[in-house]
Amino acid sequence: MGDLAIRPATAADLPAIVAMLADDPLGARRESPDDLAPYERALARLVDDPNQHVVVALREERVVGTLQLTVIPGLSRRGATRSIIEGVRIHADERGSGLGTQLIEWAVDESRRQDCQLVQLTSDATRVDAHRFYERLGFEASHVGFKLSLG
Amino acid sequence: MGDLAIRPATAADLPAIVAMLADDPLGARRESPDDLAPYERALARLVDDPNQHVVVALREERVVGTLQLTVIPGLSRRGATRSIIEGVRIHADERGSGLGTQLIEWAVDESRRQDCQLVQLTSDATRVDAHRFYERLGFEASHVGFKLSLG
Repeated sequence: MGDLAIRPATAADLPAIVAMLADDPLGARRESPDDLAPYERALARLVDDPNQHVVVALREERVVGTLQLTVIPGLSRRGATRSIIEGVRIHADERGSGLGTQLIEWAVDESRRQDCQLVQLTSDATRVDAHRFYERLGFEASHVGFKLSLG
Repeated sequence: MGDLAIRPATAADLPAIVAMLADDPLGARRESPDDLAPYERALARLVDDPNQHVVVALREERVVGTLQLTVIPGLSRRGATRSIIEGVRIHADERGSGLGTQLIEWAVDESRRQDCQLVQLTSDATRVDAHRFYERLGFEASHVGFKLSLG
């Protein structure tokens, strides 16, 4: 496969990003690839925030992956800064290619550059393959992730 | 007990906040109540960020609780904004008083005011009492929380 590039997402990437968000057992019910307006509003808010890093991975100029990295300063652990990875998606054509590893490694490297002491993420309890993937990358499944929907 | 007030944390609250962070089975190893400088630097960064809400709970003008609420815009779930609760601590004198419930309810209400569709938090797998507490408040333990230390 050709070389991989990782760069900040722009509005022009949204059709490809939203297609990946929707091409997922959990995402299929939650996304609206035919209506990009809510995604455009969200991206405009994200690009203005220096603690937000929404990136795309490109192979031969085609968007094949995405994730969101959020840098969160905090008081606990002697004022430690942590980062949170959300919205990791890999194009179906790229699964097994090592792209997921490269994207997470980018996020970990960027977290170090931002002086984070901890990288966190949560994964739905049903995504067993994803859990093995994160453990192989050195993440520890030390926490229970709770969600409350306000919908 | 007297009335409860919840307001943004200031530098003057740091000795009381850090004492609570350190008075905890996990926090005791991680905090430095005798050296507030790293906490002062972190708080200065937090108060400048409109997506960060570090609050203290006061009973008769004494700091008895704290939490950090972070508002995180995102692309997934049709551009949903979520919030993350971190650093929840209740003074030992107040445990069982309902203060934890009031603090989390404040965070949920503030998340609604900020148009969040989802409130998230992770809790160390060993904090079994905390898990029951969050489930009673309507949170669902649907995710596995992964952490990677960069220390």
